[in-house]
Amino acid sequence: MIQFSINKSYFLQALNTTKRAISHKNAIPILSTVKIDVDSEGITLTGSNGQISIEYFIPVNEENAGLLITSSGSILLEAGFFINVVSSLPDITLDFKEIEKNQIVLTSGKSEITLKGKDAEQYPRLQDMQAENPLLIETKTLKNVINETAFAASLQESRPILTGVHLVLSDNQTLKTVATDSHRLSQRQISLEKPSDNFDVVVPSRSLREFSAVFTDDIETVEVFFSANQILFRSEQISFYTRLLEGNYPDTDRLIPTAFTTEMTFNREKLRQAMERARILSNATTNGTVKLEVENSVVSAHVNSPEVGQVHEELDALTISGQDLTISFNPTYLIDALKAMDTENVTISFISAVRPFTLIPANDQGTFIQLITPVRTN
Amino acid sequence: MIQFSINKSYFLQALNTTKRAISHKNAIPILSTVKIDVDSEGITLTGSNGQISIEYFIPVNEENAGLLITSSGSILLEAGFFINVVSSLPDITLDFKEIEKNQIVLTSGKSEITLKGKDAEQYPRLQDMQAENPLLIETKTLKNVINETAFAASLQESRPILTGVHLVLSDNQTLKTVATDSHRLSQRQISLEKPSDNFDVVVPSRSLREFSAVFTDDIETVEVFFSANQILFRSEQISFYTRLLEGNYPDTDRLIPTAFTTEMTFNREKLRQAMERARILSNATTNGTVKLEVENSVVSAHVNSPEVGQVHEELDALTISGQDLTISFNPTYLIDALKAMDTENVTISFISAVRPFTLIPANDQGTFIQLITPVRTN
Repeated sequence: MIQFSINKSYFLQALNTTKRAISHKNAIPILSTVKIDVDSEGITLTGSNGQISIEYFIPVNEENAGLLITSSGSILLEAGFFINVVSSLPDITLDFKEIEKNQIVLTSGKSEITLKGKDAEQYPRLQDMQAENPLLIETKTLKNVINETAFAASLQESRPILTGVHLVLSDNQTLKTVATDSHRLSQRQISLEKPSDNFDVVVPSRSLREFSAVFTDDIETVEVFFSANQILFRSEQISFYTRLLEGNYPDTDRLIPTAFTTEMTFNREKLRQAMERARILSNATTNGTVKLEVENSVVSAHVNSPEVGQVHEELDALTISGQDLTISFNPTYLIDALKAMDTENVTISFISAVRPFTLIPANDQGTFIQLITPVRTN
Repeated sequence: MIQFSINKSYFLQALNTTKRAISHKNAIPILSTVKIDVDSEGITLTGSNGQISIEYFIPVNEENAGLLITSSGSILLEAGFFINVVSSLPDITLDFKEIEKNQIVLTSGKSEITLKGKDAEQYPRLQDMQAENPLLIETKTLKNVINETAFAASLQESRPILTGVHLVLSDNQTLKTVATDSHRLSQRQISLEKPSDNFDVVVPSRSLREFSAVFTDDIETVEVFFSANQILFRSEQISFYTRLLEGNYPDTDRLIPTAFTTEMTFNREKLRQAMERARILSNATTNGTVKLEVENSVVSAHVNSPEVGQVHEELDALTISGQDLTISFNPTYLIDALKAMDTENVTISFISAVRPFTLIPANDQGTFIQLITPVRTN
């Protein structure tokens, strides 16, 4: 029969992190609960939606938790409801006591709230991992490569493998991260500080976005463990499991062009704003595109919607070289690509009106490249 | 053919205010446009949803507008779309020029956007008001009485008159504001600084909430004009029209009790938080109520949901007088009532378990009173 007292804010923060893996409307009703395991070492909170699982460990010696454990045990509590109740409690500490099998009382100040729970035995077993030889990486570095690539993954299930991000470690040192929805592609390469075992996995982009939300900036490093169908991101207190996507990721290396006929450099933010303007009108056209024209070293953007109106805008290119060109594309892809960068300037390189063009941060040495496929118009 | 230039931020702010009266999905398509009238005095922006109409006047001598009018005229432009385009413009000023009948070009920096509009003659005529003898009132005072009462109006159209707020000026001085949805009632009385013509109107609560949003705190006073079926709130730049509700408002004076058997005073914020806790569990019960018990000068709140759990909480009453009592009610009504007040303490007065109870700010002299009807339980 569980009994402990804990700082309310600390407990709430741990519950809210765990809840990121819990879906209120899960097809398996038991997965809408949070599992609470209490033993002499501390409290473990577990949440899962079948794809992602989070375990949050609150050690008994964690100063900020003010944790005092009197008695051990396990229980399942409806996650959303339990968190609402905890956050409403009046005092800075709360007492959690199991008064009879699967029934608890929360006491805080003069408030006493009794809640019914479920038997912890009903909770599905999360797959165990062979936790060996983890990759050690700075959280910030890993979150950066996710930010730079995961947005380009597909949102459509027609080709499930493209909803993932392809992570490949080769030479025990070079981490390549790629995502594409077949209209645009983003690839980032970094060199790890410490060599590690090679791997080649496809992680659902949604899982990686959740990882970025769960691993806050105060967590300096993360250990990454791999198994055949699962990946585990682990810090001192948090274990974040996600299933991998099965199947072969397409060979994207062959898609990346190396020779170009026209190259331009822009201020990234100004180009983004011009594309935002173009998009307001391109959204009202049938093919949704903006036309970019390069003529005698003048670059301009054009949209023509017969119903709504037109945009004509001269773009300030910082440098231009190569041939004149007219090319049409979806401005949203260019806006997304520019948002994923953080440099002041960006270099865009074209081959022809019908071949994908590339974006790289100005002065980048081939570590971050994005591709956008144009739209043929007549 | 219209032609003017204007500061972008100022224009955008005026457009966004006007847009509060414009519904994107209006049954009358022309009402999704904003009407722009330009003459030598300035620019008038007009928006309407048939219930509420807003006219925003930008005078030619308004310093912050940087307005330079070259040529007059009128046009209708799709409001949401036009505002998106204006907000995307790159420079701090924009030039607005009608290049052919009902077609304009916006120029800002190197960006040039052409938009198609509609003939201003298609816009419906807003009913003219006989603008005589307005009520003069501080904007802050009027917004306060709206805040204190409008929330209690009904959201359901089954008795349309109850979706309004009853505003009555009697003795040329005493303004009474009442709203009720038949489960709770809020009444606020104030004495005007300047005497004014008496009136008795019912204004849709939704219109009053929009009024509060449109008349920002920098507008010190507002003139209120009345006609048979319309009311006009006017400041130097903004004219806000709303239709009135037709029909007789029920006589609410007779509902307000004057003699009580039990009275208590609470800290308003602590009582609100206790009711929030109770509500989490009462939402999971069939009748959705919290039970308040007064016994030997101890006040406590109780909720019992057979499925989910229970709340028991002792409430710190600052003062208690009168008889013991047990009464059940919907905690949401009490939470709303407490939120509408701004005093530190609140006095609650009961007659019996089946009669409405009253809330007043502690030490109030009968100017602000709220009623909540209990729920009979067994």
